[in-house]
Amino acid sequence: MTSSPNYQYETVKVTVYPDGVAHVELNRPKKLNAFNDEMVRDVRAVFRDIAHDKNVRAIVLSGAGRATTSGLDLAEQSLSSLTDPDADIARNVYATRKHIRDFQDAFTAIEECEQPVIVAAHNVCIGAGVDMITACDIRYGTKDSYYSVKEVDVGLAADVGSLQRLQKVIGNQSLVREWCLTGRKIDANEAYQTGLISKLTDTKEQVLEEAFKTARVIASKSPVAVLGTKHLLNYSRDHSVAEGLKYTVTWSSAMLNTEDIPLSVQAFMEKKPAKFSKL
Amino acid sequence: MTSSPNYQYETVKVTVYPDGVAHVELNRPKKLNAFNDEMVRDVRAVFRDIAHDKNVRAIVLSGAGRATTSGLDLAEQSLSSLTDPDADIARNVYATRKHIRDFQDAFTAIEECEQPVIVAAHNVCIGAGVDMITACDIRYGTKDSYYSVKEVDVGLAADVGSLQRLQKVIGNQSLVREWCLTGRKIDANEAYQTGLISKLTDTKEQVLEEAFKTARVIASKSPVAVLGTKHLLNYSRDHSVAEGLKYTVTWSSAMLNTEDIPLSVQAFMEKKPAKFSKL
Amino acid sequence: MTSSPNYQYETVKVTVYPDGVAHVELNRPKKLNAFNDEMVRDVRAVFRDIAHDKNVRAIVLSGAGRATTSGLDLAEQSLSSLTDPDADIARNVYATRKHIRDFQDAFTAIEECEQPVIVAAHNVCIGAGVDMITACDIRYGTKDSYYSVKEVDVGLAADVGSLQRLQKVIGNQSLVREWCLTGRKIDANEAYQTGLISKLTDTKEQVLEEAFKTARVIASKSPVAVLGTKHLLNYSRDHSVAEGLKYTVTWSSAMLNTEDIPLSVQAFMEKKPAKFSKL
Amino acid sequence: MTSSPNYQYETVKVTVYPDGVAHVELNRPKKLNAFNDEMVRDVRAVFRDIAHDKNVRAIVLSGAGRATTSGLDLAEQSLSSLTDPDADIARNVYATRKHIRDFQDAFTAIEECEQPVIVAAHNVCIGAGVDMITACDIRYGTKDSYYSVKEVDVGLAADVGSLQRLQKVIGNQSLVREWCLTGRKIDANEAYQTGLISKLTDTKEQVLEEAFKTARVIASKSPVAVLGTKHLLNYSRDHSVAEGLKYTVTWSSAMLNTEDIPLSVQAFMEKKPAKFSKL
Amino acid sequence: MTSSPNYQYETVKVTVYPDGVAHVELNRPKKLNAFNDEMVRDVRAVFRDIAHDKNVRAIVLSGAGRATTSGLDLAEQSLSSLTDPDADIARNVYATRKHIRDFQDAFTAIEECEQPVIVAAHNVCIGAGVDMITACDIRYGTKDSYYSVKEVDVGLAADVGSLQRLQKVIGNQSLVREWCLTGRKIDANEAYQTGLISKLTDTKEQVLEEAFKTARVIASKSPVAVLGTKHLLNYSRDHSVAEGLKYTVTWSSAMLNTEDIPLSVQAFMEKKPAKFSKL
Amino acid sequence: MTSSPNYQYETVKVTVYPDGVAHVELNRPKKLNAFNDEMVRDVRAVFRDIAHDKNVRAIVLSGAGRATTSGLDLAEQSLSSLTDPDADIARNVYATRKHIRDFQDAFTAIEECEQPVIVAAHNVCIGAGVDMITACDIRYGTKDSYYSVKEVDVGLAADVGSLQRLQKVIGNQSLVREWCLTGRKIDANEAYQTGLISKLTDTKEQVLEEAFKTARVIASKSPVAVLGTKHLLNYSRDHSVAEGLKYTVTWSSAMLNTEDIPLSVQAFMEKKPAKFSKL
Repeated sequence: MTSSPNYQYETVKVTVYPDGVAHVELNRPKKLNAFNDEMVRDVRAVFRDIAHDKNVRAIVLSGAGRATTSGLDLAEQSLSSLTDPDADIARNVYATRKHIRDFQDAFTAIEECEQPVIVAAHNVCIGAGVDMITACDIRYGTKDSYYSVKEVDVGLAADVGSLQRLQKVIGNQSLVREWCLTGRKIDANEAYQTGLISKLTDTKEQVLEEAFKTARVIASKSPVAVLGTKHLLNYSRDHSVAEGLKYTVTWSSAMLNTEDIPLSVQAFMEKKPAKFSKL
Repeated sequence: MTSSPNYQYETVKVTVYPDGVAHVELNRPKKLNAFNDEMVRDVRAVFRDIAHDKNVRAIVLSGAGRATTSGLDLAEQSLSSLTDPDADIARNVYATRKHIRDFQDAFTAIEECEQPVIVAAHNVCIGAGVDMITACDIRYGTKDSYYSVKEVDVGLAADVGSLQRLQKVIGNQSLVREWCLTGRKIDANEAYQTGLISKLTDTKEQVLEEAFKTARVIASKSPVAVLGTKHLLNYSRDHSVAEGLKYTVTWSSAMLNTEDIPLSVQAFMEKKPAKFSKL
Repeated sequence: MTSSPNYQYETVKVTVYPDGVAHVELNRPKKLNAFNDEMVRDVRAVFRDIAHDKNVRAIVLSGAGRATTSGLDLAEQSLSSLTDPDADIARNVYATRKHIRDFQDAFTAIEECEQPVIVAAHNVCIGAGVDMITACDIRYGTKDSYYSVKEVDVGLAADVGSLQRLQKVIGNQSLVREWCLTGRKIDANEAYQTGLISKLTDTKEQVLEEAFKTARVIASKSPVAVLGTKHLLNYSRDHSVAEGLKYTVTWSSAMLNTEDIPLSVQAFMEKKPAKFSKL
Repeated sequence: MTSSPNYQYETVKVTVYPDGVAHVELNRPKKLNAFNDEMVRDVRAVFRDIAHDKNVRAIVLSGAGRATTSGLDLAEQSLSSLTDPDADIARNVYATRKHIRDFQDAFTAIEECEQPVIVAAHNVCIGAGVDMITACDIRYGTKDSYYSVKEVDVGLAADVGSLQRLQKVIGNQSLVREWCLTGRKIDANEAYQTGLISKLTDTKEQVLEEAFKTARVIASKSPVAVLGTKHLLNYSRDHSVAEGLKYTVTWSSAMLNTEDIPLSVQAFMEKKPAKFSKL
Repeated sequence: MTSSPNYQYETVKVTVYPDGVAHVELNRPKKLNAFNDEMVRDVRAVFRDIAHDKNVRAIVLSGAGRATTSGLDLAEQSLSSLTDPDADIARNVYATRKHIRDFQDAFTAIEECEQPVIVAAHNVCIGAGVDMITACDIRYGTKDSYYSVKEVDVGLAADVGSLQRLQKVIGNQSLVREWCLTGRKIDANEAYQTGLISKLTDTKEQVLEEAFKTARVIASKSPVAVLGTKHLLNYSRDHSVAEGLKYTVTWSSAMLNTEDIPLSVQAFMEKKPAKFSKL
Repeated sequence: MTSSPNYQYETVKVTVYPDGVAHVELNRPKKLNAFNDEMVRDVRAVFRDIAHDKNVRAIVLSGAGRATTSGLDLAEQSLSSLTDPDADIARNVYATRKHIRDFQDAFTAIEECEQPVIVAAHNVCIGAGVDMITACDIRYGTKDSYYSVKEVDVGLAADVGSLQRLQKVIGNQSLVREWCLTGRKIDANEAYQTGLISKLTDTKEQVLEEAFKTARVIASKSPVAVLGTKHLLNYSRDHSVAEGLKYTVTWSSAMLNTEDIPLSVQAFMEKKPAKFSKL
């Protein structure tokens, strides 16, 4: 049996369960899981590592402690350390380029991670938190969870995913632009009404329970079907319908030859769970 | 007067009414209108034929009998007949390519059909059924209608339209990914809340009545305006706003010279229906 | 201190307030602010001019008098004056091209205007009115406001923005196609439910008050952050997530070097408003 | 053994040779192979039919008799028959739409035909002739062959492929625009220098011989490799490098599992021809 | 008869000939036609004005005096005047944005000008000169003409067209990247071999004569056909073949109804020049 | 002073010269620099590492010993080790996906490497060799160099770059398709005529000398200008002209504020080399 890698990070905690569900927790609870450079690196690393872990078929993401995340750690993560006020502007811009790209990559790693990621949000989830959850596949939240595209309040445009993904998530609604341009608080109810989150629970325990329930359902399906579904949803979001269909022909013409289809059909007929081999 | 073609298919029934509305019915009621190869071919054929029927200005699509459609006919439509386990994989993939493309084309024929298509769903509408209705322009459903992106349950990624069109229909909401990755049942209420369907009725009779009512309104408008509206909505969905506007200039610079505009304006002023010549 | 240009137009009224909010009013109240050629030109001009006015950081758009706008002024704006029934069709098409492009440009000027535009709609807002408001960033409306993609009723496909922008605003829902293909009335409630407008008020005074309130919040933020947010939302709407992220790296690697970030952070810490220099 | 379809067309002649090369000849020699409606239909039909003929692995295209083709048959193919000067312009435009699309499809059928198409041009090859050859994969010509993007001389923009494909064939050179805007004659030498044709021979016999020689080389390779090469060249021409690479991963991850690779490698080692099974 | 506008610019000279050819001359001969701010504005203005002049059907562009252009006027056009070393970087970047966009627009005006533009280059044509000529449709040059993508030598990447258009003009050849990365001199012969220019003459008089000859040929064709050809070449350069064909159907379905087609065919039959009405 | 990383790889040798030029040599001379898995990894690693080495401003790439590269090492690099004939096809396809992606990434690392890469080819350069050189910016070759898109001969479509990049390099010429579909040898002369290589020398020493000469010219320019030029050439190759221009505005509005511009201009005036600080 293939064993999982030894997931050791300073700021992120990973638990892999025998049913194929992994739990990834942001783990700087004293700092409300604020993103410092290390946590950015760890999030990128964990989702790149887990993508290749054949024991994992679905992932639950949440924040340890009181909060999901309070966003950027303004105390620790300082842009000013990257640049030199006396240096040439082009050199400073060049240094900043690398910094933004690395930060973006952390959340893109969630999107490109081959297994679906379900985020269970509670309490504060603002700034980089919204960038993070919009890169996840499924979003659940507690009634006390709240969100904010906070970047405008610290003098910048959200540059690590919210402005890019939010309108693909829920359309370019009037409300979305209001959120991004004012930085105002979005409460759990508004998040639910607009489809930002698709399940609302009372407590943190419950939101985790619901996320794990969905994750276990996904983990019980053919990994070929699940991988393909996420892959094609990502592709189709960013292409025309015609391009999406064309790409899908090429993808599925191989994948339809899998043994998982007869296995699934048989299980469906016999009404008992199928047992699929690992990817 | 141009007469309509003689619509004769084994598994699909077509009725053209004098008011310019055609009714297309999936017609394998004993099989809950499940898609076998013949019905795939018939659906493709009927929408390609009807596209050129100048007597038709709007189309209502529904399922005959108890259901809209139960999706793929797993009993009859067998991928295994396409491929040969002893054959070279590339040859099998090649055979599968053609099969998927043909299936996709059946629903793309609905999208590319020049007249708007309104689907009236009742009871079960799952798997290929969701692929089908997302290719329609307008979707109404009964309170007992239900939906499911079922493909993940038989070991495959939905490859004939749902993954490509669903997020363009209602945004890439958390809910959409949940539907596609779990294959769970979507009841009529959830379908209505999310905009998958835009009218909810008590009975099958009522949903057909509402669909016909809307179809007749559309059929009463200028066919030039209706054709252009569907054509430009399709184009604009898949292009940037700037590209959409540019294409529209080219489209409309010819079409604005039509006699239907003064006819429409006059009818509007005089408050009586306009009479437009056929396309 | 830079002074604002002398905004003088026949059919549009502009007021710039000291708090950085400009009010743009359609000003043909006797004609229910219907669009004649002059108003098309004036709308294009005002948003191009205001884009460069460093005293303006957010814009409220509304209609003077009883209505937002009744759409195209069918009495004054006549396509027939553009074309000559005896002339060659290609020459007529060519003349029509220019006409449509100019009309489109009026609303594209709103979208490309660097400051966010909040529209406060009341009473009738149909035809060109919907084209106009979908080019705005944020849409509020009164309970008596109503909307209609009216073009199909006068024999044409909506060609100055609604068909292109509406489905990007609220997804390609069943409802959107129903609106565009039937031209039916959309009341304030339906507009609010679908996210076309994001705030509902009782009176015209209230909708303006809410719009100004939001505008003032936006005007109080860093102009670098606000400009970037609108710019990147526009860009990302029309590109894939990957392209959006890549463009954002290039945009933000310069903008993150702004003094507005430390100013904003300090203000946030000290809980008092920041004072930003003009763009 | 699978037998080829019975290729019977009025205006096109097809011969399939045992070595897997098919010869398609335009066959209206008395009319210099000018395109009338029937020949447009036949060209579309032949390339759609041949695409599925597993006995064919490469195709040579040429003109019977004295010429390749003199382009549109102005005597027979009359746009005026499509339209009615007294009819509404929108109806005429609509009829013309179908006509152009059908004509385009004839040459797109060459591009989408899964086997490579080598055209052997001699003597006149103008107007629709250039549209046709730019849709082929490989172009050879005799020293007396000549070409012209003739459409501008009959009052129209080349609308069935030349303007779309020519600049992808040889870059958007100054020369290409000169050709298209002046309609001037391009002699064989200029065609060769610019890469429009890639082999120059003295006689018609020789150009056919060279085309057949290349076709036989292609027919001797793995059909999986050849099909994939044409398919990916078409795809990559129209996409960014990054998109091309991404699509290729999906294509090749299935195709690299073919038995043709070990067969090819072995043949290469043993220096004798490989024998591949049919697609 | 429509008269041409009164073309009065400080740094550009325009002559419109009765045969429908306009001559546009860069006219700062003492400065070797170097681009200062005024000439940038004038070039943009002249091509926007001339686009609507129905008396003009083709344009010849050249430099008055000894040179085509020596590129940017480093003495007069100073970026430092735009920016303030003490100002916030974001404000300086913002000012620079507008400046670059305005400069780009001058050459984009050539590309978007509806009539074809033939440039006749002689002597030095470097820096902005290459940006300018790559936006033209047809390029001729004298034997003493030379070119250079000079920008790298003054510390910047060519940002007003060369890097964007050059590889679309002649492919992304090894040579093109060598030119852009080293800034080295390209002599007339190399320019001719690579297709950057498509005619080589001994003297300035001859290059103008050849340019006028081609311009007169173009001016003698149907203006509908010429306009469409340039428009579709521009569109197709930047889109896939499939998109190019689709757009062309929409364009041509109107334009094929022009009287210019029977006029052209008749003139062709009778071998005498056709007389077309103005656009 | 920043020191270069310690470049240690098994199969690739790196030398960094004080003038800012790095020499990267494929270093499996006994195997004719054939690509085994290790060399694939090393090539990817070296170009990712060197991209961040501020001491390097231009790169020369060549093969140690007798050849550039004989392509894939068929002896060592075996696809069969990746897959299991008894395993499910979907699992094998999945394993193959990763393999192809990793191989593609090696050459994409050359393209994305921020410094320009000049390849100096000699003797055999086939299969993966063509994939590699088309990812370089500038290509020089000896008279005895030869090339071949060899993949079709081993039963596969070229999947690591040639089919994607070759037609962007030299247009989709007839010749390019002939090369890819027949796998035939391309001699140095043909490579030079078609622009695949842009300099032809007698010996290996000379081709290296020429490559170094060009590299040193590039290394003497502003690193801001050189980086930007490569970056924008890459971007513009894969986007429309309009998109290319728009992106360039955003890139250059920051970069035009660099000190390298006044430094370059001054050096140009004083005719002595400028001294630029590192990136």
